[in-house]
Amino acid sequence: MTVDGRLLEEVKTLIDQQDTVGLKKLLDQMRPADVADLIEHSGKDEGLFIFRLLEPEGAGDVLMEIESPVQERILKGLDSEAISQIVEELDSDDAADVVGDLPADRAKEVIEAVGDEVTEDLEKLLPYPEDTAGGIMALEFVAVKAGATVGDAIESIREKREEVENLYYIWVTDDSGRLAGVISLKDLVLEPPDKIVSEIMNPEVISVNVKADQEDAIHLAKRYDLVNIPVVDDSHRLVGRITHDDIIDVIEEEVDEDMALMAGVIDQEITEHSAIKISRARLPWLVTALFGGILAASVINQFESSLEKVIALSFFFPVIMAMGGNTGIQTSTVVIRGLATGDISLASTGKRIWMEMRVALINGLTCGLILWLIVGFWLGDYRLASIVSSALVLIILISGLVGSAVPLALKKLNIDPALAAGPFITTYNDILSLLIYLSLVTFFLCDPL
Amino acid sequence: MTVDGRLLEEVKTLIDQQDTVGLKKLLDQMRPADVADLIEHSGKDEGLFIFRLLEPEGAGDVLMEIESPVQERILKGLDSEAISQIVEELDSDDAADVVGDLPADRAKEVIEAVGDEVTEDLEKLLPYPEDTAGGIMALEFVAVKAGATVGDAIESIREKREEVENLYYIWVTDDSGRLAGVISLKDLVLEPPDKIVSEIMNPEVISVNVKADQEDAIHLAKRYDLVNIPVVDDSHRLVGRITHDDIIDVIEEEVDEDMALMAGVIDQEITEHSAIKISRARLPWLVTALFGGILAASVINQFESSLEKVIALSFFFPVIMAMGGNTGIQTSTVVIRGLATGDISLASTGKRIWMEMRVALINGLTCGLILWLIVGFWLGDYRLASIVSSALVLIILISGLVGSAVPLALKKLNIDPALAAGPFITTYNDILSLLIYLSLVTFFLCDPL
Repeated sequence: MTVDGRLLEEVKTLIDQQDTVGLKKLLDQMRPADVADLIEHSGKDEGLFIFRLLEPEGAGDVLMEIESPVQERILKGLDSEAISQIVEELDSDDAADVVGDLPADRAKEVIEAVGDEVTEDLEKLLPYPEDTAGGIMALEFVAVKAGATVGDAIESIREKREEVENLYYIWVTDDSGRLAGVISLKDLVLEPPDKIVSEIMNPEVISVNVKADQEDAIHLAKRYDLVNIPVVDDSHRLVGRITHDDIIDVIEEEVDEDMALMAGVIDQEITEHSAIKISRARLPWLVTALFGGILAASVINQFESSLEKVIALSFFFPVIMAMGGNTGIQTSTVVIRGLATGDISLASTGKRIWMEMRVALINGLTCGLILWLIVGFWLGDYRLASIVSSALVLIILISGLVGSAVPLALKKLNIDPALAAGPFITTYNDILSLLIYLSLVTFFLCDPL
Repeated sequence: MTVDGRLLEEVKTLIDQQDTVGLKKLLDQMRPADVADLIEHSGKDEGLFIFRLLEPEGAGDVLMEIESPVQERILKGLDSEAISQIVEELDSDDAADVVGDLPADRAKEVIEAVGDEVTEDLEKLLPYPEDTAGGIMALEFVAVKAGATVGDAIESIREKREEVENLYYIWVTDDSGRLAGVISLKDLVLEPPDKIVSEIMNPEVISVNVKADQEDAIHLAKRYDLVNIPVVDDSHRLVGRITHDDIIDVIEEEVDEDMALMAGVIDQEITEHSAIKISRARLPWLVTALFGGILAASVINQFESSLEKVIALSFFFPVIMAMGGNTGIQTSTVVIRGLATGDISLASTGKRIWMEMRVALINGLTCGLILWLIVGFWLGDYRLASIVSSALVLIILISGLVGSAVPLALKKLNIDPALAAGPFITTYNDILSLLIYLSLVTFFLCDPL
């Protein structure tokens, strides 16, 4: 799927030979996504060199396909005039994204340099936060009044032929601009020109409020298999549309964010070229885990006298932590993913936790039995085996509870539940597991201290 | 996004009152996805009761929106005739999915009961493995010959008006049925009826081979922002199309699979109602981790004499394992996600590992320094602090290497790389980390044994 080595070699040779004509010809034959890939896989200077060779029309499409860190670098290398030329050619939502990401002074220069129409679009879109429906909608769509005919609708499409790409539906509005219905182009193409659109429209049109979270918009699209989502304001007036490529982008973005939180990394670090930047993003999580580990060390320190008496107690630290950790990850991942896809709702919180507790009980008893047999057989100490195994059952139960309750609680507090599978909670789980284990064994084996 | 409690209550009351008329009326006003949600959130018998009330046309749409475990249960409750009636109404790809999932004898009954046309479609689609382009494509599409006019194309659409939903593109084929171009309905609606389609088609049409992996098809759709993907056979003859809802479904499915492997759970367990089934799916992973933990215990056992000399050595087990574990998860998650989205290619394996090693070095040195300061200050033993910290640096480096190399190696061996972040590798990491740590401290602190 990605650029092959041969193409990369060919481009390098052309750059080295300063053969801009040959390079331009090669780039002209490529699709925007492929040129973007080529730039991502080229060095810093070569990438910029290739990008500068593109015509403003094509350059915009390429720019939108380039991953953020590289995109940022390219924009840094261009002057405001070059950026303005590209922004002029972009769809309104992409234009707003590019300008919104520029430093304030450069954004101002670009807004001043572009045509009035583009400036107007930017001023409409820039105020919306990036992760709302308004932040991902585009202003390019086709809408007609309810009294219009199919012929009128086709004329409206003709007028916007160049401007509106990927047109599959047109919308119908009432006299105040409120969304009243939707017509697919398939129906439009089959109806006679004098038919009134309100007679063939589907009035049951699903829309999303401009201030809604982008996640809500995407849930609607997935749930009802929408290719486009119309965006409306508080008075239900049609103000924009979210297109299918943005729907897919947001789905991927949400997954990236969740995975990043769960692993303690930043998303989009894949195309980041600086080891320092990646390490800066990962270090806070590692340092959190480090301090958690040191806290765990001090917990163990409290039980030093128990350890001195029965050195074998320390043998089971890895088992105890691994089982608590894995149970927690299993449970929290299922709940996090279920919340993300909408399969788990906050309405059924109690039911979910109850299910997880039953699963944890079955798994705890099974693993406890296995551990009891092995420890008993290995160390010949069935008293120790019984205590270690009981601790394991308890720890699996508690990890199941924490793993299911914490993401649900975070969601209720409007915090991303994916955090619950991250280093913070797993470290906490380690400490809790050790504490339970050491308290139990001390109480039953090493008492009186 | 999900069914609210009030609606559920209302439905329950209607069922209790045996008010099928009222219930039917309520269901008629709902969208298929919402009815599906209602059924998922109802009890076993109520769900089936609701489903039986639906008309065959609507029932199919609802069935396709129901999550697998519940869908299976519903189908078990229906006789072959009822299933045949539903299958008749489904799109070919959905029909093949439903029939393909039935037990062999029931599938045969259904295939015999449906009309010839549907049987033919099923026989075409059933041979394709579920996770290939052929396995997710539908046979409903509109294609015209290159010599046809726009008017002819519109007539073709009219003929298939009911059969082909979500039509946004039509395809153009040559005399042998080979895919030659694509026309958007937007262009079709704007061109005069006597225009020849080959003059307005885009000949640069992206397609996927029917035997290709579904993941490859989806990568194409994401990369080139495709709403539909035409599917061709080895002779490049057009045989089907993949629609946007299936594209999104497969994207979600791949994410579910990856997350499930990484957490050691099965996907689609969210809507599973049986604790036994969930626990049976998770237990193999937990038992693997359990045996890993016991292996780790036996490793520690080997170093018992070191532990007897310096009991404080066991304090650092949690730190050592947590840091190795978190580094491994960070690295492997980034690589797994990068491979899944196509941002990391196997061509740049060496580059990726080299980047991860540099990041691990920076993070290792930073964490090592922090640990050295804390341990030195806490225990006042700078010799111990130095050895523990050096072990930490080494462990972070090795975990970074394992975390990046293992998923890349798995991908090369055509095994799902997501396995690399799962319990198997994290357990292995625990053991390796302990072994490195205990060997180092024994060598420098406790020698000669």
